[in-house]
Amino acid sequence: MIIDVKELFDQKEKYMNKEVKLQGWIRNHRKQKNFGFIDFSDGTSIKHVQLVYDDTLDIFEEIQKYHVGCAIEVSGIVILSPKEHQEFEIQISQIKLLGDCPIDYPIQPKRHSREFLREQAYLRPRVNLFQAVFRIRSVAAMAIHDYFQGNNYVYVHTPLLTTADCEGENQMFKVTTFDFNDIPLLDGKVDLSKDLFNRQSFITGTGQLHGEAFAMSFKKIYTFGPTFRTENSNTKTHANEFWMIEPEMAFMDLDDLMNTEEDMLKNIVSYVLERCPDEIDFLDQFVEKGLKKRLNHLIDSTFHRITHHEAIDILLKANQKWEFTPSYDEDIAKEHERYITEYFDGPVFIYNWPKDIKAWYMKENPDGKTVAAVDLEVPGSGELMGGSQREENFEKIIERAKQMNVDLNTVKWYLNLRKFGGCYHSGFGMGFERLVMYLTGIDNIRDVIPFPRTPGNCDF
Amino acid sequence: MIIDVKELFDQKEKYMNKEVKLQGWIRNHRKQKNFGFIDFSDGTSIKHVQLVYDDTLDIFEEIQKYHVGCAIEVSGIVILSPKEHQEFEIQISQIKLLGDCPIDYPIQPKRHSREFLREQAYLRPRVNLFQAVFRIRSVAAMAIHDYFQGNNYVYVHTPLLTTADCEGENQMFKVTTFDFNDIPLLDGKVDLSKDLFNRQSFITGTGQLHGEAFAMSFKKIYTFGPTFRTENSNTKTHANEFWMIEPEMAFMDLDDLMNTEEDMLKNIVSYVLERCPDEIDFLDQFVEKGLKKRLNHLIDSTFHRITHHEAIDILLKANQKWEFTPSYDEDIAKEHERYITEYFDGPVFIYNWPKDIKAWYMKENPDGKTVAAVDLEVPGSGELMGGSQREENFEKIIERAKQMNVDLNTVKWYLNLRKFGGCYHSGFGMGFERLVMYLTGIDNIRDVIPFPRTPGNCDF
Repeated sequence: MIIDVKELFDQKEKYMNKEVKLQGWIRNHRKQKNFGFIDFSDGTSIKHVQLVYDDTLDIFEEIQKYHVGCAIEVSGIVILSPKEHQEFEIQISQIKLLGDCPIDYPIQPKRHSREFLREQAYLRPRVNLFQAVFRIRSVAAMAIHDYFQGNNYVYVHTPLLTTADCEGENQMFKVTTFDFNDIPLLDGKVDLSKDLFNRQSFITGTGQLHGEAFAMSFKKIYTFGPTFRTENSNTKTHANEFWMIEPEMAFMDLDDLMNTEEDMLKNIVSYVLERCPDEIDFLDQFVEKGLKKRLNHLIDSTFHRITHHEAIDILLKANQKWEFTPSYDEDIAKEHERYITEYFDGPVFIYNWPKDIKAWYMKENPDGKTVAAVDLEVPGSGELMGGSQREENFEKIIERAKQMNVDLNTVKWYLNLRKFGGCYHSGFGMGFERLVMYLTGIDNIRDVIPFPRTPGNCDF
Repeated sequence: MIIDVKELFDQKEKYMNKEVKLQGWIRNHRKQKNFGFIDFSDGTSIKHVQLVYDDTLDIFEEIQKYHVGCAIEVSGIVILSPKEHQEFEIQISQIKLLGDCPIDYPIQPKRHSREFLREQAYLRPRVNLFQAVFRIRSVAAMAIHDYFQGNNYVYVHTPLLTTADCEGENQMFKVTTFDFNDIPLLDGKVDLSKDLFNRQSFITGTGQLHGEAFAMSFKKIYTFGPTFRTENSNTKTHANEFWMIEPEMAFMDLDDLMNTEEDMLKNIVSYVLERCPDEIDFLDQFVEKGLKKRLNHLIDSTFHRITHHEAIDILLKANQKWEFTPSYDEDIAKEHERYITEYFDGPVFIYNWPKDIKAWYMKENPDGKTVAAVDLEVPGSGELMGGSQREENFEKIIERAKQMNVDLNTVKWYLNLRKFGGCYHSGFGMGFERLVMYLTGIDNIRDVIPFPRTPGNCDF
């Protein structure tokens, strides 16, 4: 009976002094004249198992030929380790090579730079750093489902292929079945009616519009799926493909929205801390000192709530030289976000934003100048979520859409949601990679995505 | 304090004879001279609440103006219903119109055809049928995450944008940032180096290759995300955008794979039966008589396991006139699938398929003629999952890839997985919509996808 390394750690008392059989990979191999140590991992736990052997074994010489990276099946007795910091080790009785690995294997038991590892994207999940990051990514995804399903939200798979130009055509990838060297023309222009959907189609950058339709049916829904932007920018926080969570709730105003965002984030952080203690410890030690403390602090803290106007007040009063001068009519810059979260020493909701810098579907406040929008700023990562109460008035939203040059034809059904039993409702979006960066302390989005897509990079 | 209708049903003893406040929509409104009944739903439960009122209320005449489809906020006392089949009703004390709805609202309290409802895709989740279907879709998605995370699998978000032509270019959507009317040329041909990824890119039809890379790191992984095919076919089972689950496991052979598929499916069905009893009852009554019995039968049944050769034996011996003659060298047709599942009266694994009709990455059996592939056939729905042991031998997989005209350059990293500690491993794919159809009895894929994409249809 083959067991997982995770099970061995979880139930080590049960297996102590018993024979176990494991399958996995050699991460390191230290060979001495009469004995040897194998650092062994099967990927089910970030913790490795030490395998020990000596020359009393028939296959001693054979084992000594096994390189780093080999896949093996091993049987042996679990024994207390003589070294204090190791809990146990396994004395090999049998070992079998399942898959060889040449000595030019790129992943050697030493510290590789993250840049180098990005070039080995298909191998990098084997190193501890990415064992931690991608395990946490997986558990955080589950935390999100657990939170929303536990609160009776419906998970909606909104479509990625769309003909609605709601994000602005320039930000969306176009999709086609045409052969680029043989595009059908009509009067000298491309004849889109010959394409699969008979018109120009895109991969979407949001599921919000479709999400609202479902919120008007199920009251509380969420989406969780991939999203795309064509942005040709090479920064640490931009990728062309990423995952988004977009909850949408009927009968919820801006206050309710902030309550939901706060409750959700605390639940996700608790869930991950509870299920990934070893991964968090590893990242705390090697990536961001104080990570664990920061995450625990979040759970206990109250999220501050200030208006955009109040935020600008604080920034203007600050004894600080700004690259961008804070303004009551404008967005706030990264340096401002940082100052505000440091000022409050914790997460801050900034709400009631100037309407001209926000989206057309957001609800206008009675002041006529601001909209009921809210961004959540968190220490270290800046904006983690952005949301708003949606305009539920049919005439008003049409007026706003026209002002912002939205093609009304492509969103007619969306506007009609206001006509047929529309009600006050709110929603927000959270970039999943931002969350994973926040949970791991990793500062480059390329290192929290299994196979990142950025301009010029689509190699794997 | 506003509560969900679901909470009211779950804890009706607690709320009996108390005042509650609800927010939701009018699904039907029967008006009498001195009183009225409102059929009320907030989407948190497929069950509706009956609201009653009479002319002793100040706002009696106002209420009588409320149409079907209106959003309302209502307060009232929960009382035992005089009619036996209703558990309780609410005697309205206060009511407020939150969102009006004109009388030309397309969704009226009568039976609409599914074809009509497809044309109202943004409104159809409000009707009982789609309340049941999309709630089950959501819970089934959770069941999948619950199963895999509970068994310590890592959820991997494999990329959708890809340059690897592993599915055959003709089956994949091309993706571009070009303006179709102004495509950059080089020597008269499209200059793909000017596109965002500097080459031809696609939206993928599978996450398997990337999944294998992660299985070689974490032992057990799964993907769950959207998938695309350009197929220009209008059938009840094809859509151009759908969701797939693709688990991939290191150190797992074909038998282990079948065990995993069986265990997973039984767990999903149990999970849904337990959490959606009302939805299943509704579908049992209005969509497929015997649905509940069929699903319960699955949990208790043993999945049969036969080779493709044995399946053909059975088909050839059958006293039956076939449209397609069964053949040892060929795939089996829908009529054959049906016969086989009826013959065994339950789910059947068919394994060891002729290698020429299966994919290049599947492991060849010692007979040199078949591959270690397996399809799971279920009564009523046909093929629900398809999987295989993967070829782990570096030389052999390259030979097969060449035979099948795969462009080795685009999958070089994938092939290298066999070189660097490759081991025997297996995986399968399950179309999520097939599963939802199986769970609901719905026979058209368009009715289990929130906003389906089929040729010519990308309207919402």
